[in-house]
Amino acid sequence: MAAAAQANGKYLIPFSSRLKEGRALAQDVWSIYNAANLPADCINLGQGYMNFAPPQWVKDAAEEALQTVAANHYSHPKGRLRLREAISNFYSPAFGKNLDVESEILVTSGANEGQYSVFTAFLEHGDEVIMFEPFFDQYLPSVTFNGGKPVYVPLHPPSKANLKATSNDWTIDYDELRRAITPRTKMIIVNTPHNPVGKVFSRKELEEIAALATEFNLLVMSDEVYDCLVFDGKEHIRFANLPGMWDRTVSVYSAGKAFAATGWRVGWLIGPPAIIQPTLAASTRIVFCSNSPLQEAAAAGLEQARDRNFFETQAKEYEERRNVLLNAFDKLGLTYTLPEGSYFVLLDISRLTWPDNYHFPSSIDGRGRDFKACWFIATEIGVSSIPVSEFYCEEHCHLGESFARFAFCKDLDTLRNAGERLQGLKKYLKE
Amino acid sequence: MAAAAQANGKYLIPFSSRLKEGRALAQDVWSIYNAANLPADCINLGQGYMNFAPPQWVKDAAEEALQTVAANHYSHPKGRLRLREAISNFYSPAFGKNLDVESEILVTSGANEGQYSVFTAFLEHGDEVIMFEPFFDQYLPSVTFNGGKPVYVPLHPPSKANLKATSNDWTIDYDELRRAITPRTKMIIVNTPHNPVGKVFSRKELEEIAALATEFNLLVMSDEVYDCLVFDGKEHIRFANLPGMWDRTVSVYSAGKAFAATGWRVGWLIGPPAIIQPTLAASTRIVFCSNSPLQEAAAAGLEQARDRNFFETQAKEYEERRNVLLNAFDKLGLTYTLPEGSYFVLLDISRLTWPDNYHFPSSIDGRGRDFKACWFIATEIGVSSIPVSEFYCEEHCHLGESFARFAFCKDLDTLRNAGERLQGLKKYLKE
Repeated sequence: MAAAAQANGKYLIPFSSRLKEGRALAQDVWSIYNAANLPADCINLGQGYMNFAPPQWVKDAAEEALQTVAANHYSHPKGRLRLREAISNFYSPAFGKNLDVESEILVTSGANEGQYSVFTAFLEHGDEVIMFEPFFDQYLPSVTFNGGKPVYVPLHPPSKANLKATSNDWTIDYDELRRAITPRTKMIIVNTPHNPVGKVFSRKELEEIAALATEFNLLVMSDEVYDCLVFDGKEHIRFANLPGMWDRTVSVYSAGKAFAATGWRVGWLIGPPAIIQPTLAASTRIVFCSNSPLQEAAAAGLEQARDRNFFETQAKEYEERRNVLLNAFDKLGLTYTLPEGSYFVLLDISRLTWPDNYHFPSSIDGRGRDFKACWFIATEIGVSSIPVSEFYCEEHCHLGESFARFAFCKDLDTLRNAGERLQGLKKYLKE
Repeated sequence: MAAAAQANGKYLIPFSSRLKEGRALAQDVWSIYNAANLPADCINLGQGYMNFAPPQWVKDAAEEALQTVAANHYSHPKGRLRLREAISNFYSPAFGKNLDVESEILVTSGANEGQYSVFTAFLEHGDEVIMFEPFFDQYLPSVTFNGGKPVYVPLHPPSKANLKATSNDWTIDYDELRRAITPRTKMIIVNTPHNPVGKVFSRKELEEIAALATEFNLLVMSDEVYDCLVFDGKEHIRFANLPGMWDRTVSVYSAGKAFAATGWRVGWLIGPPAIIQPTLAASTRIVFCSNSPLQEAAAAGLEQARDRNFFETQAKEYEERRNVLLNAFDKLGLTYTLPEGSYFVLLDISRLTWPDNYHFPSSIDGRGRDFKACWFIATEIGVSSIPVSEFYCEEHCHLGESFARFAFCKDLDTLRNAGERLQGLKKYLKE
């Protein structure tokens, strides 16, 4: 922060003080562990994007759209009607209500812009937003840019004695959560399935949060972008479906996650008109509308997904991908948190050691032990991952230092290859 | 504003006060004159999008991109390297410098999001932003959402006696501009070619603005999205090229305008690192990155434009479209401002009358005379346009009441058809 303030002195036109908060100008973890900084043949299990393409039948719809006139021009700021209808048809059964395409659905330029627009629409200067740590790193600056104040409540990691931890063993202390609520608390962010823990929140956990949301009249942003990636027969529970929650909840979804198309920048929000209408007003000014051809493709995806049994098949494929990576960790004798959703797994790297004189770049000076571990694994073994302390606030980042996040949204061969390389860590493990 | 505040009472979770400013929740002009509210066969010369498709050779690149893996996934927040290189190659000669792809170019999710990100990056609460009226209507809420205060300086319309006005006859009173500058003025928005006037600012006009920008250390946002649509041999002058202006200017461009693809949501900013770097920090949080396949298409467009003589040919086509519409106005005996750039023309509708008992919808109650004129032309004649008082602040909106904005980004047949229909206005014109 001090560095940013100082740097501002060089600028002919000073930039806004909002950039001095929320790590906005800090070198982010994605840049440090960017492929360009790592060995050329490093296998990238860092950033969460697929190394395979979206399904051809979904891409076909984008190509058809490009051949029309209308789908190359502005969409309605609410989103193209075809996509809103597809969303309504696909999600109405899941929400147990007939979702209105005019007032309860908003297409956004990726889930990210949708979330940003919710903050723009609802935060007053000084409003507090509760987020569970570890958290998706974009939440923090998105809140502070809109004048909000992030308040952190940790998900407590499993005890070290728990060698067979599942994501269920990351737990909320509800008294701690209650103590975090103040008269300025406006909003709470729920993320299920959870990035980076892979936790699929149970009904009981969500009910505890819901009770506090009602008691303190909180807006709930339920980030459910991994809703179609749930494993082991576990059930994804939509927060808005809990009793009384519809009216205070906006649910966030992503075509990028659903159809392996993270570069399409199409997402959607579902919620009551009293939340969607102000968010539409914000989004209309921020981006005006989202790109048209890829909205048509996302529409085709949702229209056909059920008949093609697409999401069921895809979830099984991701489960298989996950298991390849987990088997490699098992073979190494390393413990991890079994993810029941999302496409991330947290590996416990506290037993990993490296030579005392190992050279680390200055960009990770002063960061947690996990930053060194991830750098060492990437450069020595050739598999990149992301240090988990990045997903914590400064005060709590020691809680994340034992973990590296590996993404398994990669094809099986790549994951098998990574698994073999990772066996090279054996000689660096202490008992 | 009062209505918005009142409405907020119905909301379980109150929305942000920023939505109560800058017309954010007002029914906008685009909704009032939306095709759905007008006769089914109305010819739409209202909103500025084309009724023709982007060139096939540009779309081909989007289809090729869809067939790859990488171009379906995240782009770098700065934009895809191929597009940044194409921008550098295309614009470097025009800027008379070698534009650095890492620090002087930023790809955004449409020009709109680019402009929004500049406001996010640079405005402090209470900072004043000068805009010339009439102004592109998105500027206003984009400034207020980011805590800024819009300050309006009118472009003075040609005198009524001037029957052959060109967009050059809309003039700035530089003393009035100087008086509008206060110690809180941070930024000035220049828009050349200008929407909705079609004015291509002269070097002398821009130099007057530049002198004030230097004197008061202002950031200049030069919205040049119509840079490739300049007619009659007129020269588009890039504000950043004026002496001393590069360091304080961010220039805004749009693939949608350049390649008849308003729904692609790809734009770009060009400026010095000290402006691009903070804007990148803002844009990265707002949208993370822009859609990948259509960035590839825009890159192909810029790569091939020069060899194909594309922009020269396209400008001639637009000039022909413009002339079809102007001939229809001439035949009617109505005066207009001859646009030297952009794809809009302002028709003087002060001689238009309508029956005293004509029924107008309640959505235009209390709005200017131009709102009625546009409604009457659309419903009686079957050609839609946009009332120009919408592009003024409340205090100055009488300055726009004499004009309707017609868009000529439509094929020749449509414009000829519209021109014939418009002859039906003859019987409603007073001397």
